[in-house]
Amino acid sequence: MPVLVVGSVALDSVETPFGKADDVLGGSATFFSAAASLLTPVQLVGVVGSDYPIEKLEPLAARGVDLTGLERADGQSFRWRGRYRHDLNAAETLETHLGVFSRFSPKIPDKFRDAPFVFLANIDPRLQLDVLQQVKRPTLVACDTMNFWIQSRRPDLLELLSKVDLVTLNDGEARQLSEKVNLVQAAKWIMDLGPRHVNIKKGEHGALMFSRDSVFFAPAYPLEGVFDPTGAGDSFAGGFIGYLTRTGDLSDANMRRAVMYGSALGSFAVEKFSIERLMSLTRSEIDERVRQLKHLTTFEEELPA
Amino acid sequence: MPVLVVGSVALDSVETPFGKADDVLGGSATFFSAAASLLTPVQLVGVVGSDYPIEKLEPLAARGVDLTGLERADGQSFRWRGRYRHDLNAAETLETHLGVFSRFSPKIPDKFRDAPFVFLANIDPRLQLDVLQQVKRPTLVACDTMNFWIQSRRPDLLELLSKVDLVTLNDGEARQLSEKVNLVQAAKWIMDLGPRHVNIKKGEHGALMFSRDSVFFAPAYPLEGVFDPTGAGDSFAGGFIGYLTRTGDLSDANMRRAVMYGSALGSFAVEKFSIERLMSLTRSEIDERVRQLKHLTTFEEELPA
Repeated sequence: MPVLVVGSVALDSVETPFGKADDVLGGSATFFSAAASLLTPVQLVGVVGSDYPIEKLEPLAARGVDLTGLERADGQSFRWRGRYRHDLNAAETLETHLGVFSRFSPKIPDKFRDAPFVFLANIDPRLQLDVLQQVKRPTLVACDTMNFWIQSRRPDLLELLSKVDLVTLNDGEARQLSEKVNLVQAAKWIMDLGPRHVNIKKGEHGALMFSRDSVFFAPAYPLEGVFDPTGAGDSFAGGFIGYLTRTGDLSDANMRRAVMYGSALGSFAVEKFSIERLMSLTRSEIDERVRQLKHLTTFEEELPA
Repeated sequence: MPVLVVGSVALDSVETPFGKADDVLGGSATFFSAAASLLTPVQLVGVVGSDYPIEKLEPLAARGVDLTGLERADGQSFRWRGRYRHDLNAAETLETHLGVFSRFSPKIPDKFRDAPFVFLANIDPRLQLDVLQQVKRPTLVACDTMNFWIQSRRPDLLELLSKVDLVTLNDGEARQLSEKVNLVQAAKWIMDLGPRHVNIKKGEHGALMFSRDSVFFAPAYPLEGVFDPTGAGDSFAGGFIGYLTRTGDLSDANMRRAVMYGSALGSFAVEKFSIERLMSLTRSEIDERVRQLKHLTTFEEELPA
């Protein structure tokens, strides 16, 4: 089964304490696709400019990412330049050039409209709503968002949230959206808007998945060498939604497993620049990391006396 | 089996967004004892001033905290006044009066010198070293510390660390001590000084226990109502070391279980002011929370195809 992703396809220039990379593949749809395609076929919808090195996407296509929906428009591609300091926690944005992305209007190819799983990556909620108009009856629609839209497009975002099944966002965004400091309260507030599942990403501190009557916590893999945090959240979403798509099973037990695949893929993404590590990954490496993540939190309860 | 704790016994005045409390029981040894005594007998060594409402410690004594080592000195008790803002993350210290604590010189009563488990709560590393001179051959010695000692007593602290089996500290302290941003690297650096186990507390983000060849992660219980974070770390240590003392089992499997008891006790401590919630707790409530914490991270791996 394929998963449809709509989001940004960009060129990133990144500086970390360990090195720098210029004009490498980036963008939410790119990271999502690189991660999800390890588990299931992906249908990508996005836009690039006439300057985009399309040939660099070939390895993704070879791995089952259908690029039919990748529009090429006249103009410059979306470029982001950022820097991470010593603690690698927050990216400092040095430059953002939206280019053709500023006029992006997603057109879902006919053959993608039946996609059973849909991920609306972080773009204008009006466009996310527009995508929902174009797809038929997906089994599950998930979306991401960011501080900018929470502030500037609140009514549209609230409308979107009433129409999706699952939302992924980071802890700061969950607090900003709900205006609640406590994450349990924030998640409940968001679920009251509509989504059955709220996935709160906390970076190196792991991720919480809130459902109506269950909470699951996935730890982050304790990496000794975090190289470049860019794209970790979208790779997490790719592993998570990709696993759900592959299995087609929305039981609580399988959702939990899916979150662990998200955590595993997110941890691989940060080991190298861009999607480099995701492109060299094998399925057995992923399974092995999921096993290690399981071992990280496994303990046996005391037997009753 | 008893656990010996040496640390502060104070009077706290705390203000949170939910209320305020004046001159309530506080201090590292107090929180540790309140938590650990739910699991095993405790021997407390500390000092209070002539103004201390000793009778308020009676419920602790009734629960198996031996106060023989609690010295009463002429002068004022250690008082701390602090405030938590909206996000409850960091305490803002408004006043600290060390009082008789500034001249504290721990004297371990003869009957405590055989204690098999010892917790050196956060005090001057020179005093922690001095305690080690006074005890016989403990099975396990654990210590805590803080930013102030890391900066001002580094040589003594490094000497102490070469003599303990386990250290608990928070993520900021681990980074400050090791001068490494990455926590995996920080923990390895600290273990190279001597301790076989490094327990890094991350508050609402859980706790990591690093051992020579194992890493364990205990999530924090996702509380909807955190009331007063004061004492969470020492209550965590009380549950953790208290459980180890009760079982006397230092296997990796049991250490993992012990950390979960630490996480459970830490989560109860923040539900009310001071040690109030810890004093009303029952063993079955603790076991139930450990079960909930287990459920929080439990998932089944995918069966091989």
